[in-house]
Amino acid sequence: MTTLYDLVIRNADVVTASERFACDIGVKDGSIVALGRDLAAGDREIDATGLLALPGGVDAHCHLDQPLPDGLKMADDFFTGTRAAVCGGTTTVIPFAAQEKGQSLQAAVDDYHRRAEGRAVADYAFHLIVSDPTPEVLERELPELIAAGYTSFKIYMTYDDLKLSDREILEVMDVARRHRALVMVHAENSDCIAWLTDKLTDEGHHAPKYHAVSRPAVAEREATHRAIAFSELVDVPILIVHVSGKDAIEQIEWAQRRGLNIYAETCPQYLYLTAEDLGGEDGYHGAKCVCSPPPRDTDSQKAVWNALKRGVFSVFSSDHAPFSYDDPQGKKPGGEEVSFEHIPNGIPGLETRLSLLFDGVNRGKLSLNKFVELTALNPAKLYGLYPRKGTIAIGADADIVLWDPERQVTIRNAALHHNVDYTPYENRTVHGWPMHCLSRGELLVENGRYLEPKVGRGRFLAAGKPQLLDL
Amino acid sequence: MTTLYDLVIRNADVVTASERFACDIGVKDGSIVALGRDLAAGDREIDATGLLALPGGVDAHCHLDQPLPDGLKMADDFFTGTRAAVCGGTTTVIPFAAQEKGQSLQAAVDDYHRRAEGRAVADYAFHLIVSDPTPEVLERELPELIAAGYTSFKIYMTYDDLKLSDREILEVMDVARRHRALVMVHAENSDCIAWLTDKLTDEGHHAPKYHAVSRPAVAEREATHRAIAFSELVDVPILIVHVSGKDAIEQIEWAQRRGLNIYAETCPQYLYLTAEDLGGEDGYHGAKCVCSPPPRDTDSQKAVWNALKRGVFSVFSSDHAPFSYDDPQGKKPGGEEVSFEHIPNGIPGLETRLSLLFDGVNRGKLSLNKFVELTALNPAKLYGLYPRKGTIAIGADADIVLWDPERQVTIRNAALHHNVDYTPYENRTVHGWPMHCLSRGELLVENGRYLEPKVGRGRFLAAGKPQLLDL
Amino acid sequence: MTTLYDLVIRNADVVTASERFACDIGVKDGSIVALGRDLAAGDREIDATGLLALPGGVDAHCHLDQPLPDGLKMADDFFTGTRAAVCGGTTTVIPFAAQEKGQSLQAAVDDYHRRAEGRAVADYAFHLIVSDPTPEVLERELPELIAAGYTSFKIYMTYDDLKLSDREILEVMDVARRHRALVMVHAENSDCIAWLTDKLTDEGHHAPKYHAVSRPAVAEREATHRAIAFSELVDVPILIVHVSGKDAIEQIEWAQRRGLNIYAETCPQYLYLTAEDLGGEDGYHGAKCVCSPPPRDTDSQKAVWNALKRGVFSVFSSDHAPFSYDDPQGKKPGGEEVSFEHIPNGIPGLETRLSLLFDGVNRGKLSLNKFVELTALNPAKLYGLYPRKGTIAIGADADIVLWDPERQVTIRNAALHHNVDYTPYENRTVHGWPMHCLSRGELLVENGRYLEPKVGRGRFLAAGKPQLLDL
Amino acid sequence: MTTLYDLVIRNADVVTASERFACDIGVKDGSIVALGRDLAAGDREIDATGLLALPGGVDAHCHLDQPLPDGLKMADDFFTGTRAAVCGGTTTVIPFAAQEKGQSLQAAVDDYHRRAEGRAVADYAFHLIVSDPTPEVLERELPELIAAGYTSFKIYMTYDDLKLSDREILEVMDVARRHRALVMVHAENSDCIAWLTDKLTDEGHHAPKYHAVSRPAVAEREATHRAIAFSELVDVPILIVHVSGKDAIEQIEWAQRRGLNIYAETCPQYLYLTAEDLGGEDGYHGAKCVCSPPPRDTDSQKAVWNALKRGVFSVFSSDHAPFSYDDPQGKKPGGEEVSFEHIPNGIPGLETRLSLLFDGVNRGKLSLNKFVELTALNPAKLYGLYPRKGTIAIGADADIVLWDPERQVTIRNAALHHNVDYTPYENRTVHGWPMHCLSRGELLVENGRYLEPKVGRGRFLAAGKPQLLDL
Repeated sequence: MTTLYDLVIRNADVVTASERFACDIGVKDGSIVALGRDLAAGDREIDATGLLALPGGVDAHCHLDQPLPDGLKMADDFFTGTRAAVCGGTTTVIPFAAQEKGQSLQAAVDDYHRRAEGRAVADYAFHLIVSDPTPEVLERELPELIAAGYTSFKIYMTYDDLKLSDREILEVMDVARRHRALVMVHAENSDCIAWLTDKLTDEGHHAPKYHAVSRPAVAEREATHRAIAFSELVDVPILIVHVSGKDAIEQIEWAQRRGLNIYAETCPQYLYLTAEDLGGEDGYHGAKCVCSPPPRDTDSQKAVWNALKRGVFSVFSSDHAPFSYDDPQGKKPGGEEVSFEHIPNGIPGLETRLSLLFDGVNRGKLSLNKFVELTALNPAKLYGLYPRKGTIAIGADADIVLWDPERQVTIRNAALHHNVDYTPYENRTVHGWPMHCLSRGELLVENGRYLEPKVGRGRFLAAGKPQLLDL
Repeated sequence: MTTLYDLVIRNADVVTASERFACDIGVKDGSIVALGRDLAAGDREIDATGLLALPGGVDAHCHLDQPLPDGLKMADDFFTGTRAAVCGGTTTVIPFAAQEKGQSLQAAVDDYHRRAEGRAVADYAFHLIVSDPTPEVLERELPELIAAGYTSFKIYMTYDDLKLSDREILEVMDVARRHRALVMVHAENSDCIAWLTDKLTDEGHHAPKYHAVSRPAVAEREATHRAIAFSELVDVPILIVHVSGKDAIEQIEWAQRRGLNIYAETCPQYLYLTAEDLGGEDGYHGAKCVCSPPPRDTDSQKAVWNALKRGVFSVFSSDHAPFSYDDPQGKKPGGEEVSFEHIPNGIPGLETRLSLLFDGVNRGKLSLNKFVELTALNPAKLYGLYPRKGTIAIGADADIVLWDPERQVTIRNAALHHNVDYTPYENRTVHGWPMHCLSRGELLVENGRYLEPKVGRGRFLAAGKPQLLDL
Repeated sequence: MTTLYDLVIRNADVVTASERFACDIGVKDGSIVALGRDLAAGDREIDATGLLALPGGVDAHCHLDQPLPDGLKMADDFFTGTRAAVCGGTTTVIPFAAQEKGQSLQAAVDDYHRRAEGRAVADYAFHLIVSDPTPEVLERELPELIAAGYTSFKIYMTYDDLKLSDREILEVMDVARRHRALVMVHAENSDCIAWLTDKLTDEGHHAPKYHAVSRPAVAEREATHRAIAFSELVDVPILIVHVSGKDAIEQIEWAQRRGLNIYAETCPQYLYLTAEDLGGEDGYHGAKCVCSPPPRDTDSQKAVWNALKRGVFSVFSSDHAPFSYDDPQGKKPGGEEVSFEHIPNGIPGLETRLSLLFDGVNRGKLSLNKFVELTALNPAKLYGLYPRKGTIAIGADADIVLWDPERQVTIRNAALHHNVDYTPYENRTVHGWPMHCLSRGELLVENGRYLEPKVGRGRFLAAGKPQLLDL
Repeated sequence: MTTLYDLVIRNADVVTASERFACDIGVKDGSIVALGRDLAAGDREIDATGLLALPGGVDAHCHLDQPLPDGLKMADDFFTGTRAAVCGGTTTVIPFAAQEKGQSLQAAVDDYHRRAEGRAVADYAFHLIVSDPTPEVLERELPELIAAGYTSFKIYMTYDDLKLSDREILEVMDVARRHRALVMVHAENSDCIAWLTDKLTDEGHHAPKYHAVSRPAVAEREATHRAIAFSELVDVPILIVHVSGKDAIEQIEWAQRRGLNIYAETCPQYLYLTAEDLGGEDGYHGAKCVCSPPPRDTDSQKAVWNALKRGVFSVFSSDHAPFSYDDPQGKKPGGEEVSFEHIPNGIPGLETRLSLLFDGVNRGKLSLNKFVELTALNPAKLYGLYPRKGTIAIGADADIVLWDPERQVTIRNAALHHNVDYTPYENRTVHGWPMHCLSRGELLVENGRYLEPKVGRGRFLAAGKPQLLDL
C-alpha cells in the first residue's frame, strides 16, 4: 500500500502573503497536496517545530551567465547562481535571455537554454531583454515567444548597447499590450549620464564614487516619469525595476494614485547601501558597490522601506549581477587605473536577498505577510508562475523554506555559495535565517548546509500571462 | 470508528486574501482541519463544483437593537439582523454596545449581551461606543473591558448625544494607545452641520435632500484631518469609519503617505448612491437614503472604487442601521411634515453588502483577493478575531460561503431577510451571489434559502488585540 | 510765490512692489505729488543718492498697550511702540482693539482710541479682536464698526479667555462675508495644547522649552486646516496669522491650489529662531523666545523663506508683543519658579522686522520688490489702507524710508527704541538698514537717529474694505 | 523757452503690476520723465479721463516673417505684424531668429535683421532658435550673441527640423547657465507624436481633429517633466512656452514648489479654445485652430485661468504664427485632401492677445495688476528689456496704452490689422479695449484707428541679462 505523502512537514507555522496558520504539510510528487492537523505519515518527515514555513523565494531579477560584450564574463552560471539561491531560501530564479543588437531574440533564447540546461539546481523562467526591436522582432518573434512562455521583457533607457529610443519603447510596449506581456523598464536617462560622465572625466574625476555622481536621482526620476507617460499613452501595465530612492518613488506613487498600472521593484542595495559606500577620492574598494542606479542616501533608504510597507513596490528582487572584485573579468580588471565608467555594473545578492529583508520584519519595517508577498507571491503572479510558485497552497509546487525567525547570522562571503569573491554586506548581522530549503519536495539545504543535489535538477518554467495586482 | 471529518466540502475553488487554489475542505468540530486533494469521506459532504469558497464575511460596522433616545427603536435585533447577515454571506457581525452619557460602559455592555444572547444566529463581537469618557471610564472601565475582549471603540465627532470634545477624543485615544485598542472615528464636524442646518431650516428648507446639503464633504474632510492630527499627536492607530468620498480620501491617503497608521472603511452606499438619491424639493421618498455622511456624487464614487483597489481602505462594511420607512419608529414617523434633521440616520445593508462589492469584482474594479481582504480578512485582523475568523485556513472556524460568481440576481426587498421594509438597492441587478453559507461547519443557508437554524446558536467572540496591517 | 513742493527727495532709487526707477520725489501737504527727473526746488530737500527709497513699512500685526488679564501690562504703549516702529522703517501700525468676554466691541474700540490718542508718532489703524460674538456683536456692532473703518478682525482658536467655538467662528466669518471684512485667524488647537500642557506639568516639566513641546506643529496644522475648511464652507477670504513652519504652510498652499482665498502671514521669529532658542532643561533665559506658535526647526525656517519667495505668504509682520524679561509684569515675574504655561506669550520685534527681512534680500532669499510687497503694499491692500499707504506713488502719503542696502548693523537692544529690556536678535548682524524715515513728509528719523517729533502726531486711519490679492 | 514735456497725458488712471494711481504723465524725448498732479503744459496733450493707462504690452512669443522649409511663408512680416500689435495694445514684440540645421546662428540673426529693418512700426528684440548646437555654436556664437543682446533662446523637443536630442538640450542649457541667458522650451515628446501620427494615418484618420489626438496632454507633460529635470541637473532657469493645460501645469507647479526656477508661459488659445474647435470627422474648417500643443478641454481652461491668477505662469504671450486659411501658403494648401500632419501649425493672435485676457479681468479671473504683470512687466524683466519696457515709471520708454475698461467689442477679422484671413475668435465679444496706443511718446493708434506712422520707425532692442522673478 502506498503512503499518501512522499513527505510530511510537521508542525509548520505556515505564512502566506495574507495568512498565518499552524499545520502539517503533505507533499506528493513534488506538489503540496494536503494542509492539515495530524496528517497521516509520509515516507519522509521533517519536523518544523519553531520554524516558519514560507513559500520559496522567487527572485525575479538576477543575471546568470549572461553573454556580455568586451570579453566580460559573469562569475555565476546557472549552477553556482541557483546554488546560492537555494541556500538563501530562493527556489525560483528569472534571469534574462538578452538579445544583442543585430541578433534574433529566438537565438538569444536558444543560447540561454543551452546555458541553463543541466546546470540549474532551482527552477527557472526567462525574461527577455529586447535591445533591437526590428519589425521581425515586434511582429513575429515577440508574439511567438510570449505564446511559448516568455511573457516578460526588459528594456533599457540607458547603456549604449541596450538602450531603446522613445519610439522603440512605445513599439515594444504596444506589443506587450496586444499580447498581454509585462514590460520591465530600466529607467535612467542615458544622455544625462553621458553628459555628466564626460564632464567628470574631463575634470579628472575617475574614482568609483563618481559613478554615483554621474547617475543622479534626477536622471532616474526623469526616465521613470517618461516610462510612466509611455505606459499611460500605450495603455499597458509596466514594471519599473530596481528603484533606488525617493525621487523615483514619488513619480511611481503619483502614477498609481492616478489609477495607472505602474508596478515597481526595489532591491536590498537600496535599503542597506548609500553612495558613501562607493568610497572617497582615493581607493578603489568602492567599486564593489557600483551598480545602477547607484545607492542614494539615508533619506532614500527610509523612503524605500516606507514604500515597501505601503505597497508602492510589488516586488523585491536581488538584481544579482555577479562580478568578482579581484578578477581579470571582474570589477577591478585594471585596478585603480580604471575610470568609474568602465567598472562592470552590478553587485551580488541572490543568497542574501531574503535574509536582508527579513531583518526588516524583525525590526518592524514590514509584516511577515508583506515579506512573503514581495519576495514570492507577487513575482510569481506578475511573471505568470502562479499558482505553481509563490505560495504554500494545495496544488502548488512544494517549494518551501523553513525559517528560524530568531537566528542571528553575520554575513560573511566565505560562507556564501555564489562564485563572487565578495559581498557588499560583509560583517552585517541579520536577524532571521533560512534553515532548510525544499524545491518540489526535495530537500536541498538542511540546517543551512547545501546538500549537493543533482546538478541540473532545476526545470525551465514556461510562464503564463501576467496576473495583474491591485495597485 | 470515527470519521476524520464531520464535513467535507468537495472541489472547492478556495479564495483567500492572497491565494486561489482548488481543493477539498475538511471540517471537524466546527473548525477547518484539512485542505487537500481527495480528502477522506466526511459525515456530510457538500459538492462545491463551480463555486468559489470564500471566508464568511465579517461585517465590522452594523447596528442591531441598539438602544436609542427619543423612543426610537431599530427594526432589526440580533435575530433578524444576523439572519440577514448569513443570507448575504456574512458569518460574523460586530455591532456596538453604546454608552449613554451618564451611564457606565460596563452597564452598556451588560445590557447589550442580554439583547444578543439567545437571539443571534451568527457569531458576534462588540465594539464599544464611548460617549462619556469620565475618569472612571478612562482609568478603570475601558482598560478592564479591553482586557475582557472589547478591543475596539467608536467615538463620534458629531451628534449631540454622542459627540466628544477634542480633549475627550485625545484622552480616549491615549487609553487606546496604552492598552492597544483600536479607536474608530465618525468624522464630521458637528458645528458646521448645526450651523448649516439652522440656516437651511430658517430658510424653510426641510426636504430630505437638505440632509446632504447640511453635511457637506468639507465638514467630513475637516473632521477627518482633525482625527488624523490627534492620532499623530497621541501616536496611536485609528480607523475612520464610513468614508464617503474624495475629500476625506485625500486626507487619509496623505496621512498614510506620511507613515501614519490611519485605517479607513467605506460602505456600499458610497459606491452606489449619490446625493441625488435623497430626492428633490418635493416628496419624501429620499428619506430612505438618509445616512451620515450622506452619499456624494459620481466623482466620489469613482474615488471610492479607486481607493478600495489601491488599499487606501482596509475595510468594507455595511453600516447597517435598520429603520423602516413606513413605520412610526422609522424614517417617516410624521410623514412629509418631518424636517430632514429629524429623519433617523442610516440605511439597511447587512445582506446586500457582499454581493454589491462582488459585482465590482466582475466589473474589474478590484480583484477577488482584494474582495476577501476587505470583507473578511482585514476586519478580522483589525478587530482581533483573526485567525479564528476571516480566512479559510487550518485552524480557522469553518465559516465558509460558497459563491456562484456568475449568478445574476435582481435585489428586491421582498426577498431579503432583514426586518426593514425597504432596501435602497431595490431592482439593482448584481453579478455574483452567495449560494450556501456555513458557520462553524453548520449549513445555515442552502441555495440561497435560509435553513432556520437554532435561534441563539451564534456565539459571542471575545476579541484579541488588533493586528495592525501594512499601510 | 509758493513753491510746488514742501519737500523734494533728490536722486531716489525708488522701489515698489513691482518696479525700480531713479527719480526725484516731490511732496506737498504730506502727500507724494510728483515723481520725476529734475523736479523744481522744494522748501526742503533731502539727497537720497546711494539710498533706496521704499514705502514706509506697514506692520499689520503688533500689540501695543493692549489691556490684559491677571494684572499683566505690556511694556510698549502707542508712544514707545510707534517710536520703535519708525526707527525700524515702519510708518503705519495696526494693533488690536481687543474685546474682553462680556464687553461690548465698541467699548473696546473706544478704550483703545483713548490709549492711542496723543501718544502715537506713526499713523495707525485698528484690527478688532472678537472674543465674545454675541448676537448684539454679530448683528449690530460688527457691521457698524466695519462701516466705520474697522474692517479686519482677529479670532483665536486657542487661549481660554479669547478662543471661539467652531460655531462662533462660522458666525463671525459669515458676518465678514456679508460685510466684506477680513478675518485673521490664530490657528492652534486649544485642546491639544491643554492636554499636552497637563501631561507635561504632571510629569514635572516646567522649563520654557516645554512651551514648544506643548504647542507642536501638528496642533497648528490641524487648526489651520480647520480654519481653511470653515473659510471654504462660508465662502469668505481669511488670513492665517503668524504661520510658523512647513506643516501649516503645506495646508495653506494646498488650499490656495484649490482656488481658495487663504492668505497667510509670517514673522521674523520663524525665519531666525528655532525651538532650541527656548533653552534646555535648566535655566530660564529661553523665556525670552516664548511666543505662540513657537519657533520650529531649521527645516521649517527653510520652508518659510521658500514660501515667502513664492507668494504663499502675502504679509510679513512682527507680531510685536512687548514683555520685558526682568520685570514684575514681564516674562520672569516669579523667576525660575514659574512654569512655562504662565510665561507671557510674545516677543518684541517692531523695530527689527524690516532689517531682518532685508537681510534675506541681500542673501538672495527674495527680491527687493517682494520685500516691499510683503512689508508694505500687501498689508496696506488687505487691510484697506491702500492707496494711501504701502506705496510710493502719486497721491500716496509721503511715508518713505530711505535704506542703505549695504550698511551692516549689529542689533543690540541698547540701541533700540522700544521699551522692552531685550531683543531675541541681540548680536545678530544684518545687512541693510533704514537710515531716514518720513511720515507724511515729516522726517522722523535721520541717519538712524530719532528726531523726537511731536508725541501724538500719529493719526488714526479709518480702513476701507480689503482689496483682495491674486493668490 | 522750451517746454518741459513733449507730451502730457492728463488724468491718467495709471496701473502697474502692483499699483494704481491717478496722475498726469509727462513725456520728453520718448521717455516718461514725470508723473504728477497738475504737470506743466506739454507740447501735446492727451486727455485720458475715464481711461486706464497701462504699460504697452510686450509680446514675448510671436512669429513674424520667419524663414520656413517646404516653400511655406508666413502671412505677416514685421510691418503687418507690428501694425497688428500696436492696434492691440502691444508696443514691443520678440520674434525668433531661427537657425536652420547646418546654418550659423549669426547668419540667421543677420538675415532676420534684414527682414525687420525698415518694416517694423513697434520696437522689437530677437529670441534665437537653436536647432543645431554645434561646438562652434555652443562655444563661440552663442556666447557672442548673448553678449550682443540676444539673451534668450528657444529650443524644441519636437519637429524634425528643429528638435534637439537630450544631450544637445543639456549642452545648450549649460551655455545659458554659464552666460546667464534664458532657455525657452517647446515641450512635447517627438516620438510619441510620430508614433501616434503613424497609427492614426495608417488607420485613415486625416481630419484636423486628429492633430489634437496625435499630440495628447501626456506627450506635453512628459516633455515638460523632462525639461524640468534637465534644468535641475544643469542648475539653470528655464521657461516652458505655450503651456496648454492641467497636466503640464501640475509638473511646473511641482517644480516651483521644490524651489526650481521653472518659468512658464501660456497663450489665449488655451483660455478660449478646446480640441472641439478642431472640428469633427468631416470638414476642414478646424485647421484654423491647429496649433501645438493643441487646445485641450474646459477642465484645462479652468486650470490655466487658475494658474495665471496664482502666479504659476509668469508670461502671457500670443504665439502668433500667421498662416492664412484660404491660401496656397497657408492652412489649406491642398484643401481637404491634406492630412492633419501637414497643416502648418499656429494661429494668429498678436492683436487680440490683450483684450482676450483683459476680458478675464472684467470677469474676476485675475486682477488688473496681474494683467499688467503677465503681459508687460514680466516679459520685459525676463527678456532683459526692463526697465526700458514693461512699465510706466520714470525713465521708461513712453510705451503706453490707454484702455477703456468698459468698452465691449465683438472681434471680427475684417477689423483686425494682421495679414491673416481669419481669427479663431471671430464673433467673440470682449469687455475692455485698447483705445490709444503710444510708442516712445508717439501716438500710433487713436480711438482704435491706426494712424499710419512711418513704416520702419520700430527699433531693435539689444536685450540685457534676464532679471529673475520670485517664483
